[in-house]
Amino acid sequence: MGIAEKIISGDVRAAAKLIRDIDDTVPEARVILKELYAFTGTAYVVGITGFSGVGKSTLVDQMVAHLRRAQKTVGILAVDPTSPFSGGAILGDRVRMQRHSMDEGVFIRSMATRGYFGGLTQSTRGVIDVFDAMGKDYILVETVGVGQDEIDIVQSAHTTIIVLIPGMGDDIQALKAGILEIGDIFVVNKADREGADRTVHDTRVMIEMDEKRYKDGWKPPILTAQAVYGKGIKELLDEVENHRRYLTSSKERESRHRYEKTRNALAEMIRNKIVHEVLDDITHSGEFEEALEFVMKGKMDPYTACDNIVLKKLGSGKK
Amino acid sequence: MGIAEKIISGDVRAAAKLIRDIDDTVPEARVILKELYAFTGTAYVVGITGFSGVGKSTLVDQMVAHLRRAQKTVGILAVDPTSPFSGGAILGDRVRMQRHSMDEGVFIRSMATRGYFGGLTQSTRGVIDVFDAMGKDYILVETVGVGQDEIDIVQSAHTTIIVLIPGMGDDIQALKAGILEIGDIFVVNKADREGADRTVHDTRVMIEMDEKRYKDGWKPPILTAQAVYGKGIKELLDEVENHRRYLTSSKERESRHRYEKTRNALAEMIRNKIVHEVLDDITHSGEFEEALEFVMKGKMDPYTACDNIVLKKLGSGKK
Repeated sequence: MGIAEKIISGDVRAAAKLIRDIDDTVPEARVILKELYAFTGTAYVVGITGFSGVGKSTLVDQMVAHLRRAQKTVGILAVDPTSPFSGGAILGDRVRMQRHSMDEGVFIRSMATRGYFGGLTQSTRGVIDVFDAMGKDYILVETVGVGQDEIDIVQSAHTTIIVLIPGMGDDIQALKAGILEIGDIFVVNKADREGADRTVHDTRVMIEMDEKRYKDGWKPPILTAQAVYGKGIKELLDEVENHRRYLTSSKERESRHRYEKTRNALAEMIRNKIVHEVLDDITHSGEFEEALEFVMKGKMDPYTACDNIVLKKLGSGKK
Repeated sequence: MGIAEKIISGDVRAAAKLIRDIDDTVPEARVILKELYAFTGTAYVVGITGFSGVGKSTLVDQMVAHLRRAQKTVGILAVDPTSPFSGGAILGDRVRMQRHSMDEGVFIRSMATRGYFGGLTQSTRGVIDVFDAMGKDYILVETVGVGQDEIDIVQSAHTTIIVLIPGMGDDIQALKAGILEIGDIFVVNKADREGADRTVHDTRVMIEMDEKRYKDGWKPPILTAQAVYGKGIKELLDEVENHRRYLTSSKERESRHRYEKTRNALAEMIRNKIVHEVLDDITHSGEFEEALEFVMKGKMDPYTACDNIVLKKLGSGKK
């Protein structure tokens, strides 16, 4: 049996190996992903994001418990791009969600390799495809932090959950400017803390200020939860189902959503391939070293050096 | 007088216009940056980063006050990449550091445009060059958050300051895995809060675990500060000077530092140019739309579609 077939039949070991290869950007992984692609498209992908310390892992853990009670299989991907150097996820598979580790219906992986310039987003899509091809009903993608990578990652989900906590102060402002636009559902976790009502209120005000959100007919609900006590989880999953129904209730909406996702994924894949192949060639070339020496010696500015190199690589059609 | 000449002679309006153009990635900005490049290299660049809410702006504000008292001119760049959508800096030039706004020796700008895939880092380098060409003695680059972009940005500084606050909990772990490696100086701000000693201690332990740091001879100091009361600022600036002396005390070290910075900058510039030029061409081509349709209809997997397009664009030399 080939590796792709093994994965489709649910072989955890083969899937784990492929995910490691994806994380390490082993070229062969791509060949298998090609084969798997035809078997994807059935899983429902939920992205969970928010600043560090808001309790995302606990929330995910509780969501998994609920989904398992409903006999759903789950793939969990924890993406941690804050560790570009050490290359290890902050919270590895080993320490997180211990209680699900013996459950065959749950498959947990974490990714730490950032790759560079969008590589992580592509790797994440690859892992989602692996979970999907394995036949998981739900895929929960948890990201650490709220940078551009995290936004790109959760945007490839069907439903995006933004997790907040009371009293985030400046951070609410950051949300306003940044990830507010991508949230389908907001959860104020640790809602027993002082200021929860205020955070709910502030979030609501910000969402309502953003009128264009309503054009499409989905008004993001703002829930409260206390994930450590399992409170608010059922309501959260109910809203996930509501959003799922919303997405699938209109053929046009569903198709547009799929078109946008596919378009983004393809454009990104092309970008990555170009950057890797061309840039690798360039930075390992004698021309690059020569240009660098010129710049170092003050004989040329880096802009001109860059133009010369790119022109040479891509041909005279470019300026 | 040309725009570059105006900027070199310290014309604030011309500089402000160019910086706006850089932020908007107006192509003409690049032409002026080329001209300015020969006039750069004298400013000392200090990067300041840390999670949102640690008081970076206040710290920067106090550092500026000290530097101004020492008759140094200062350029301040606040980089806020958390707002990819709305395109406005959280804390714009208007609201921040009011007290320096009438001081001609201080030039404050903020950038919010993320561009895509490293574009922000390049824009930031461009603005640093503008400040440098204007003749600023010090350039303080403050970033919001600690993602890859922020790391790239502060790494282009001579000295990088990481700002912490007591009781960061999980965030300290994130530092351990991520930006700990890039800090030349650590400051525990809001040091009157409970747990300051603990944070200093934890940070020290983490730094000391990372033995390879010492190979190069600089052991990052861990300071405390209460920026709102102006406490600890002088000590911080003393350490910046210590680090500057450390960098410049060895010709070999200084040259290596400059080589690495220039190499990174050039590679990144090339990457950006390639991505922008090639990818723009591709995603606006009929081939892309055709490939996308194939993928949407399930006639082709996106990996194969990507390969076909890139092969066509870059010629048959690539696989």
